[in-house]
Amino acid sequence: MSKKPRILILGAGYGGMMTASRLSKQLGYNDAEIVLVNKHDYHYQTTWLHEPAAGTLHHDRTRMRIESVIDTNKIKFLKDVVVEIKTAEKKVILESGEMEYDYLVIGLGSEPETFGIPGVEEHAFAIRSVNSVRHIREHIEYKFASYNGSDVKHDEDLTFIVAGAGFTGIEFVGELTERIPELCKEYDIAREKVRIISIEAATTALPGFDPELVEYAMNILEKRGVEFKINTPIKEVTKDGVLLASGEEIKSKTVVWTTGIRGSSVLEKSGFETMRGRIQVEPELRVPGFEDVFVIGDCAIIIDEATNRPFPPTAQIAIQQSSTLAKNIKALVHGSNNLEAFKADIKGTVASLGGKEAIGVVGSKKLFGTPAAAMKKVIDNRYLFLLGGLPLVVKKGKLNIF
Amino acid sequence: MSKKPRILILGAGYGGMMTASRLSKQLGYNDAEIVLVNKHDYHYQTTWLHEPAAGTLHHDRTRMRIESVIDTNKIKFLKDVVVEIKTAEKKVILESGEMEYDYLVIGLGSEPETFGIPGVEEHAFAIRSVNSVRHIREHIEYKFASYNGSDVKHDEDLTFIVAGAGFTGIEFVGELTERIPELCKEYDIAREKVRIISIEAATTALPGFDPELVEYAMNILEKRGVEFKINTPIKEVTKDGVLLASGEEIKSKTVVWTTGIRGSSVLEKSGFETMRGRIQVEPELRVPGFEDVFVIGDCAIIIDEATNRPFPPTAQIAIQQSSTLAKNIKALVHGSNNLEAFKADIKGTVASLGGKEAIGVVGSKKLFGTPAAAMKKVIDNRYLFLLGGLPLVVKKGKLNIF
Repeated sequence: MSKKPRILILGAGYGGMMTASRLSKQLGYNDAEIVLVNKHDYHYQTTWLHEPAAGTLHHDRTRMRIESVIDTNKIKFLKDVVVEIKTAEKKVILESGEMEYDYLVIGLGSEPETFGIPGVEEHAFAIRSVNSVRHIREHIEYKFASYNGSDVKHDEDLTFIVAGAGFTGIEFVGELTERIPELCKEYDIAREKVRIISIEAATTALPGFDPELVEYAMNILEKRGVEFKINTPIKEVTKDGVLLASGEEIKSKTVVWTTGIRGSSVLEKSGFETMRGRIQVEPELRVPGFEDVFVIGDCAIIIDEATNRPFPPTAQIAIQQSSTLAKNIKALVHGSNNLEAFKADIKGTVASLGGKEAIGVVGSKKLFGTPAAAMKKVIDNRYLFLLGGLPLVVKKGKLNIF
Repeated sequence: MSKKPRILILGAGYGGMMTASRLSKQLGYNDAEIVLVNKHDYHYQTTWLHEPAAGTLHHDRTRMRIESVIDTNKIKFLKDVVVEIKTAEKKVILESGEMEYDYLVIGLGSEPETFGIPGVEEHAFAIRSVNSVRHIREHIEYKFASYNGSDVKHDEDLTFIVAGAGFTGIEFVGELTERIPELCKEYDIAREKVRIISIEAATTALPGFDPELVEYAMNILEKRGVEFKINTPIKEVTKDGVLLASGEEIKSKTVVWTTGIRGSSVLEKSGFETMRGRIQVEPELRVPGFEDVFVIGDCAIIIDEATNRPFPPTAQIAIQQSSTLAKNIKALVHGSNNLEAFKADIKGTVASLGGKEAIGVVGSKKLFGTPAAAMKKVIDNRYLFLLGGLPLVVKKGKLNIF
């Protein structure tokens, strides 16, 4: 009996988890060995992280132990950190060892894109992991406590800057408008003392969204006290705040950076050809020139023929890719070369604005307010259903739909 | 009809609140005008502050709106900060004005005693107000979040130093041993990573307590992972930790200073003769040489004839003083010079060690463990009863006695 081929999946984000889950259902026990490697022993909902970052949802609601969700009879889980991929030797270097593969799935996710702006890495926070959002949540609360605990009051303690008014930035600002009044109460501080500033270099907030939706969102947030600075590039982040391209300085002890992502630095380090750290893959999600290496999620670039631009790095796309990817690997394992090309089926996009407010597009229909907020929760729950069925929806879902 | 004399009470701590409360009951509406000035519009339980500082009790449980407790028909409350007392002009300078008095009660409380050790004011926290304990609570939690939110781990983030193993220091350490395991869970950190270090310059922890009680307390706390460094003077506090007299450095981002108190700096500023910022008063609680100025609580020094040492600056003493003080002011207002001398009646002392553990002396009886912890709560509730009757006990009391 020949050795079972090993499918090695790097990263337990949306793409990695769903690929592992689908493969475990589609492959027989003797077809292949499936190994899933991840830095933490838990999986988390990246698209929910703006909530625990603001402190409006506990982070444990966004994460789950990987081994409690996957079929551990069919998937071997390994908690380790990926250091480098050695394609020539068909192996992966991990922090505490190395592992060979027959088929490799790279789902290592993304890192914040700093655009080379000085000070971002040193002085700004990024919404990117359970650890980082706990840090942001506590940093915000600590600034309230510091303000009141100091004999000399520093207004910059109560100035919160969100750099980037894209999807994540706006969703985070929305949660902040919910959380700040609670913190004001807890720390005996008047709401008017606190500034929430959304800074965007582009000519509009929420670029890519319908202008009517953008206006709705900005109105809602401005009514809740958010100051927008659109068309306002940031030149530098310092320990005291941000310097704008105009020369103006805004003092703040809290800058959260949400201006977009680049692919995992492991890819560049491993010698792959990348664009902003991401690999442009073939329609079958394979890395050009490598028969046995696939990429999924934020690390992969696929051009949307409809727009001639890459699909956005979203959970929706990663989850859809997992379906194509599982089929293709199954085919290879079974000796077929009849691979399927990825086809996106974008059902819509909804951005929450905190509380019962949201905006979105579903099909060709624009949604505002409560219906949009409800749809957002339905989308969040749908993924849990795909991953772990009804029990996971009950355990971790957002059940207060209305 | 001649003008009513004004009794001006500075500070709404134990002494000021209880004096105001007793006077409002003992004096008729036409006898005098009672004015109570305090920095905040709330009164808080100083002796409970080690709990919200550790995060084991919410600070709102330790405070109450002053106007919800006093008889506002008889006492005028003024939220203002005392800047200086001008005895020659019989007036008090406040941050936003000034006020004359016929009788003055100084109950301005205490400030942390640094003993001139460099860096204490700049780098150490003190358990002294609602604002300061919220700051400590959040600082501790923020260090857990920072540890896990940083790519590079800093052990000093998880090292907590309590300088002073006296009453407050030990009670705070006891609460920390309750809180730290919760924080470890919240931030995915192993308990063994966290150090709690109690440093005391004297030759024993809890100086003044019976050695058997001290040993019991230290055993309990050591079992919960506290490291004691007794007979270990601190030379300097820096932004990186503490330097011991021995030359050893202990790195820590959190130093809480509990080595004792001195009187309010307003007293020195106002030209009173002080010892560590406190005024040695006559047995009637009057300032020598001033017929109309009284001192109560931590600002007052009275020598205990039994020990030939000052009574400790405790809530118990301040509350007992309020009884003498109210009687004496009432006598003066009614034209009598027959004043009463303060007599202490120390009923006992109980130090909590966190959770269901405590030690104490009641009368001549030593108490350990659960009975001591229960007695501590009885003492805490007794004050609430004196101040606001049963309704206040029900609202703010520690009702889970066992």
